[in-house]
Amino acid sequence: MALYVQKYGGTSVGSVERIEAVADKVKGFREQGHDVVVVVSAMSGETNRLIALANEIQSRPDPREMDTLVSTGEQVTIALLSMALKARGLEARSYTGSQVRILTDRVHTKARIQDIETGRMREDLDQGRVVVVAGFQGVDPDGNITTLGRGGSDTTGVALAAALKADECQIYTDVDGVYTTDPRVVEGARRLEKITFEEMLEMASLGSKVLQIRAVEFAGKYKVPLRVLSSFKDGPGTLITIEDDAAVEKPVISGIAFNRDEAKLTVVGVPDIPGVASRILGPISQANIEVDMIVQNIAADKTTDFTFTVHRNDYDKAQQVLQQVKEELGAREVVGNNKIAKVSIVGVGMRSHAGVASKMFDALAAENINIQMISTSEIKVSVVLAEKYLELAVRALHSAFDLDESDTVRE
Amino acid sequence: MALYVQKYGGTSVGSVERIEAVADKVKGFREQGHDVVVVVSAMSGETNRLIALANEIQSRPDPREMDTLVSTGEQVTIALLSMALKARGLEARSYTGSQVRILTDRVHTKARIQDIETGRMREDLDQGRVVVVAGFQGVDPDGNITTLGRGGSDTTGVALAAALKADECQIYTDVDGVYTTDPRVVEGARRLEKITFEEMLEMASLGSKVLQIRAVEFAGKYKVPLRVLSSFKDGPGTLITIEDDAAVEKPVISGIAFNRDEAKLTVVGVPDIPGVASRILGPISQANIEVDMIVQNIAADKTTDFTFTVHRNDYDKAQQVLQQVKEELGAREVVGNNKIAKVSIVGVGMRSHAGVASKMFDALAAENINIQMISTSEIKVSVVLAEKYLELAVRALHSAFDLDESDTVRE
Repeated sequence: MALYVQKYGGTSVGSVERIEAVADKVKGFREQGHDVVVVVSAMSGETNRLIALANEIQSRPDPREMDTLVSTGEQVTIALLSMALKARGLEARSYTGSQVRILTDRVHTKARIQDIETGRMREDLDQGRVVVVAGFQGVDPDGNITTLGRGGSDTTGVALAAALKADECQIYTDVDGVYTTDPRVVEGARRLEKITFEEMLEMASLGSKVLQIRAVEFAGKYKVPLRVLSSFKDGPGTLITIEDDAAVEKPVISGIAFNRDEAKLTVVGVPDIPGVASRILGPISQANIEVDMIVQNIAADKTTDFTFTVHRNDYDKAQQVLQQVKEELGAREVVGNNKIAKVSIVGVGMRSHAGVASKMFDALAAENINIQMISTSEIKVSVVLAEKYLELAVRALHSAFDLDESDTVRE
Repeated sequence: MALYVQKYGGTSVGSVERIEAVADKVKGFREQGHDVVVVVSAMSGETNRLIALANEIQSRPDPREMDTLVSTGEQVTIALLSMALKARGLEARSYTGSQVRILTDRVHTKARIQDIETGRMREDLDQGRVVVVAGFQGVDPDGNITTLGRGGSDTTGVALAAALKADECQIYTDVDGVYTTDPRVVEGARRLEKITFEEMLEMASLGSKVLQIRAVEFAGKYKVPLRVLSSFKDGPGTLITIEDDAAVEKPVISGIAFNRDEAKLTVVGVPDIPGVASRILGPISQANIEVDMIVQNIAADKTTDFTFTVHRNDYDKAQQVLQQVKEELGAREVVGNNKIAKVSIVGVGMRSHAGVASKMFDALAAENINIQMISTSEIKVSVVLAEKYLELAVRALHSAFDLDESDTVRE
């Protein structure tokens, strides 16, 4: 007799047949005596269809009207799913974000949830109804429709679970859990039974995009147990939890994340004077370019090489900015490389284990892979290497840290 | 410097190009210094698409969820039209029925408007904004989304015009006004400059479906000047007004309406005793069949023939019901005919003119057209005749009452 908030994404409600499959799944939980609040996305393709219409009309569509437009996508799904539940003999009631009410700030297309009224949902649950809520949307203090930005349905699910003090927030998606690394790269990649919020954040931001990062942060902050499961096959999925006492028993690392989205830029031969970093990164930031890794080395000749990575889409723009910066600083040259990849090992276990980084570097060296940059945090070590070595590096590390399926299964 | 409420139907906003054409039209009114509130329908085809999805899921879709579903259609249009207005440098703001707020009763899919809050719209108009409102929808006292039933966007337009005390409610459609009769039947059919609400009601209910009948009733009740115009070509359209002092100057009749939707049934040889009508029509009504014209004649043999018309779709069902009724009443037989048509002459002028009906019958007799049934009201005379004579009858009457284009144009 638990209360579950279940979120089904666009693919899971992408057709009438799939909406009916979701209704069957919800019915199963109701028959076990559980209370269920369902959060749904727009049917897959619908949001893009609406955005395309807007772009035909206005090159930069008005944000308020954009929210009014795209929020119809989830509204269609809540109505159809409620009908499917009723067709199965369940009581159900749909709510838009504005009806619930999910109160947000006024930042159209990127609103943040400020409060959720739970009165109507509680009443429905008490009456034995399934509550069906439109994800991704809310209402601002003036009654304007807002959206949380794309993928925000995960956040809606977590926020509702927190507000209702649900036993679990279940995110149904097209993968059956969080893996040690991408199974398309490493055949022996394993589904994790559990992962901590911190690890999940590092995995998500590093490219294992199972969950929206804001949803994970939110769940961690409000201590909402979060579970990632498949909409299409049964299974326990992966539970994302607060680090527990058993953490010391955990393996050193939980997974290998990677991405190919970045490019590297180096300003070579910068005079080694105070304020150099801000004089380089200030103009980059003003050009709305986000920077990820930053490394600075001092050379023997009192000059320094300053290297950082940006999203590959910003590579050309960043080079233009740096040409100007080079002149101003009297630096020698600007060099760059957009054929790089970033590979990271992630795990709360590394906190209590020395030598994790050197084990990583050894494993890469054994494959003759040259490391171009290194960056570390408490629970991860990232390296930049040539893109062509990516798969080899991931497989080598997966094996070096005993993550392969043939190794002891972690429970 | 007038305030216009303009309503554009589904065909007028059926594509991005058409939405942009509407925006151009609205811009023209703004440039002349007028204030404009626009009411829009869903893009043509969209409501049917949504209903089809619902019918795939539930054979009789839940009415509350149906309203939540189909109301998205207009919501998409208000957002796109507001973007198109902004792209043209106008200030604009969209509102759903729930945002305005258009308050209705709780009857899902057939709700009636109870009140409209005008505060936000007034404020927008004062700021020089075009207000764009979703037609066809409202919100009930509990915050549930309701719809006014199909075609209800006309009613939204009239209700907003009444609430805002607008100078005119303009209904843009795919015809350029109200005609003396269907131009496809009579080549000389003329657009009317003016028509009274009462005449319009008779014309609409008799098959000249330019406007929703409820919208016309509403406009008459609240004395909102209503104008029917074309979205696609410029022109003054037809103004629907309260009968004015100049009515005595009016021609005897304003137009010829007709339909082919009906079928006729006669119970022959019914004993002429009190209560016969209710014993025949009671079971018909219980079978949810609506009756239009009713005629009863007494024969020489103390029996009566009871004749009425129903919608052609109900013809078979009505015959089955009458077989049972015939047995119970001891009537002789049931005969029917679904190859009939109804033709009506409509005009407030006939109140002050004698002999209108006989002029009508003479004109039909001159063409050897047999009249099967007659029904009259203060401002119309309707006859039922064999369907094959329909076009001939309409042309004969159009000419007999001097409605042809070659006759003096009525202003």
